[in-house]
Amino acid sequence: MASEKLIDRETAVKRVTPEHLDQLLHPTVDPKTDAHVLATGLPASPGAAQGTVIFSPDEAEELAKEGAQLVLVRHETSPDDFHGMVAAQAIVTARGGMTSHAAVVARGMGKTCVSGASALEVDYSQQQFTVNGEVVTKGEWITVDGSTGRVFLGKVPTIQPTLGHDFYELMKWADEFRRLKVRANADTPHDARVARQMGAEGIGLCRTEHMFFGDKRLACMREMILADGTGAREKALDKLLPLQRGDFVGIFREMAGFPVTIRLLDPPLHEFLPNVDELLGELSELKMALRHAVTLSDMDHLLDEMDEKRQLLRHVNKIREANPMLGFRGCRLGLLYPEVTRMQCRAIFEAAIQVKGERKQVTLEIMVPLVSVSEELAQQAEIIHDVARQVMGEHGMKFEYEVGTMIELRTNDLTQTTFGLSRDDSGRFLPAYVDRKILSDDPFQVLDREGVGELVRIGAERGRSVKPNLKVGICGEHGGDPSSIAFCNEIGLNYVSCSPYRVPVARLASAQAALEAKVKAAAEREIEKQAQEATVA
Amino acid sequence: MASEKLIDRETAVKRVTPEHLDQLLHPTVDPKTDAHVLATGLPASPGAAQGTVIFSPDEAEELAKEGAQLVLVRHETSPDDFHGMVAAQAIVTARGGMTSHAAVVARGMGKTCVSGASALEVDYSQQQFTVNGEVVTKGEWITVDGSTGRVFLGKVPTIQPTLGHDFYELMKWADEFRRLKVRANADTPHDARVARQMGAEGIGLCRTEHMFFGDKRLACMREMILADGTGAREKALDKLLPLQRGDFVGIFREMAGFPVTIRLLDPPLHEFLPNVDELLGELSELKMALRHAVTLSDMDHLLDEMDEKRQLLRHVNKIREANPMLGFRGCRLGLLYPEVTRMQCRAIFEAAIQVKGERKQVTLEIMVPLVSVSEELAQQAEIIHDVARQVMGEHGMKFEYEVGTMIELRTNDLTQTTFGLSRDDSGRFLPAYVDRKILSDDPFQVLDREGVGELVRIGAERGRSVKPNLKVGICGEHGGDPSSIAFCNEIGLNYVSCSPYRVPVARLASAQAALEAKVKAAAEREIEKQAQEATVA
Repeated sequence: MASEKLIDRETAVKRVTPEHLDQLLHPTVDPKTDAHVLATGLPASPGAAQGTVIFSPDEAEELAKEGAQLVLVRHETSPDDFHGMVAAQAIVTARGGMTSHAAVVARGMGKTCVSGASALEVDYSQQQFTVNGEVVTKGEWITVDGSTGRVFLGKVPTIQPTLGHDFYELMKWADEFRRLKVRANADTPHDARVARQMGAEGIGLCRTEHMFFGDKRLACMREMILADGTGAREKALDKLLPLQRGDFVGIFREMAGFPVTIRLLDPPLHEFLPNVDELLGELSELKMALRHAVTLSDMDHLLDEMDEKRQLLRHVNKIREANPMLGFRGCRLGLLYPEVTRMQCRAIFEAAIQVKGERKQVTLEIMVPLVSVSEELAQQAEIIHDVARQVMGEHGMKFEYEVGTMIELRTNDLTQTTFGLSRDDSGRFLPAYVDRKILSDDPFQVLDREGVGELVRIGAERGRSVKPNLKVGICGEHGGDPSSIAFCNEIGLNYVSCSPYRVPVARLASAQAALEAKVKAAAEREIEKQAQEATVA
Repeated sequence: MASEKLIDRETAVKRVTPEHLDQLLHPTVDPKTDAHVLATGLPASPGAAQGTVIFSPDEAEELAKEGAQLVLVRHETSPDDFHGMVAAQAIVTARGGMTSHAAVVARGMGKTCVSGASALEVDYSQQQFTVNGEVVTKGEWITVDGSTGRVFLGKVPTIQPTLGHDFYELMKWADEFRRLKVRANADTPHDARVARQMGAEGIGLCRTEHMFFGDKRLACMREMILADGTGAREKALDKLLPLQRGDFVGIFREMAGFPVTIRLLDPPLHEFLPNVDELLGELSELKMALRHAVTLSDMDHLLDEMDEKRQLLRHVNKIREANPMLGFRGCRLGLLYPEVTRMQCRAIFEAAIQVKGERKQVTLEIMVPLVSVSEELAQQAEIIHDVARQVMGEHGMKFEYEVGTMIELRTNDLTQTTFGLSRDDSGRFLPAYVDRKILSDDPFQVLDREGVGELVRIGAERGRSVKPNLKVGICGEHGGDPSSIAFCNEIGLNYVSCSPYRVPVARLASAQAALEAKVKAAAEREIEKQAQEATVA
């Protein structure tokens, strides 16, 4: 209608809903289908995809290498399953909400996901799931509709999205109106490329820990964590350095000319280690095998294996935490093990120098995570500057970079701590809370303005009172939520950052927020004017 | 000196340090001793005590019944060890800081404790600990000095405190100057009695969950947690009701005429359940036994036992949380399982009516824990009022009571969430943080004014802006810390609440804070006056 001049651009931008735009960006299930709906769960990550049912992430990885199209079905997912999620076309979980591990990771990857399909009884040992008495076995085809939460039996026709002229035109208009910059959360060169295609103006959050979950990398990471003393740790870090540098090179190339915010290692170390219960189970099995070993060499072999597992168990137990979310992580790690920060910074600066050598512009921002007192930031910044001087000296080169931090924690974490609410554990009562109107929304999806928002506002205000040009943005789930974006616009943040596939939605929502603010300001001016005229009269 | 009129009372109150007073209140090791110091740890809970070394809390409980004097030595303690801590004269741990479980619980009980004596290598299986090559076995006598952190081999002479006329006189003077009320944290009639002896003006925090850790009670509590559905849960709660009511009757009697703040059930339920690793180990043992069972009836017996443990394990796994501190606890429990709140309130109101029947005054305040949004408090208050009406109706009696909440979380929890820092897990880096001056103090001991304190101030200010006579106090560790007390005085709180044995220190510190504030105000007035005179001149 705008192209035909029936409405103006402003009206066009105002009329398109984020939900509509979101549909435009993803494949959809043919609305004319009458295929059999197996189960319905939460629309955790939009899109439509199909594949054969698979339960084991390891097998999924293997089969995907051979070109298989797979749907990973799990009770719920954990960081251990990441490689299987990468390998699959879509993910279905029986448990977990809109902010479960599966949902968040899938949205981040732009991968179709249905979570919390509670009618599914998943049986790993039988390699099948049952739903209302119907049995679906490994290898059967299913189709997943992540936009509506439906899981179909068989291959259901899907419609591919076409990002045509209209889409790009609409985005261009939105960009004219918005004030907020829109960046993307991207951890790999691939994500960075998608982010640019979606119009992201930089990376607001590059999570370096995600670079350590691949199989070979995980082994190095474990070696680093289990290392006894600084020397051994440095040796393991030396192996991680080139891998990490390679990732940064790829990301900087894709984002040439745009800012890239890289966050140093943030999560608790135990996320990289095996599960204690599984380890205990494996050890028990080995003990049983030892009882029935026939030859001495069999026994030696078993004893070696047990030794290794027992050592691993001791280490895991040593670093186990009651509340890992609030534990030994983020800059606390970097302060006590400065060699970890040093390795990461070396990888970053060396990558920057390499890409600059290719005559591409690198705009680098390093983010120190989980800072609660200023001295933490100061001591981490010292290490960063020291490595920068060193690497620049080695290459006879100098360039600018910025060092910053999160307002204590990013808004997801700030929501956890403001509410005293663990996202991982909230599934048991948060849905009931929303049902009973104790909360109007899931605060991990829609930013809570009264509590969390107030803290962000106080943080931004006090920060700018001492540094007026302080750059403030939010990253994490809220950065892609229209209501949260409107709030960020209102309190004057500089940018929002969201998953690459949410970037168009964020661009639109930012424009709508700016237009809304314009209308409000005009109305206020009008009221003021009338009040003045009344006084004069 | 004050008695001899050499100094006035104000000066006397100002001169006594809290540390000095703390020493007065506890037995001390004879300073002339030249006994052998085995190890030094943190002075986690003051006093001097001796006993024979014991490692198992269960055994400690058994032996204490026979009159044994024991010192419980552990790697570290958990709520599972509570009965052993009660039974022992003193507690020594190899791990854990000033705010570890052992330290906090021991201070709460007024029991001598040395924590984090890291030179101790505790070996439960050999029932011994080694320290610099020296082996100390179960049954050997040791003496613990919780005021200095020393652990001695053998029985070292101790000096009992005498709270003489001077002590009471000094306290009376302090009471004349202070503005803050001082209450105690007390969970049992015994604690309440001690609190009154120490001069507490009420109970600021009565933790009802501590009433469920005795052996018979723990069984009922587990039954309640594992109950399938509301009906079964109510049946288990019926067993807990008389036990809980009995405790309240005892507490109300001791505190007649003074306010008692009772907090409804707060901790995560898994604290009442057995440890998963231990359960897995027990199950493996049973499986082994099953392989070698001789008779069918032996097998039946083993199968029954396994069945029970497997069911328990399933339940424990179901309610297991990644970050229990931020999980399904506090009023979240009371909202989803209102029958728990109903039982607790019935116990409270019935106990109040019984004690009122004895012509004693009961001033009742019910506190709803872990409130993050107002609707939570509103819905819990509705249940409380409903039970109140019901119980009062049954007894044809009416009386006043108050319902309140914590400012989100009590200051310990607020410190955890403000810093994103789990108290249970902070031992690995917090000492290093203080050493390196990243933090000036352990924020769990000394209230952090800039962050946590600011939030408390904002909370109190905003609360009073809508309800000017809002009663605000703090309970928890900070309530007994002089620097934190000074801050509470400064921001105009009504009371502090601390463990019974800290009450005299809190009374003194409150007086000193009030005197300090008086001096400061006088100085400010003087400056203002001079400024005015200067203007006039």
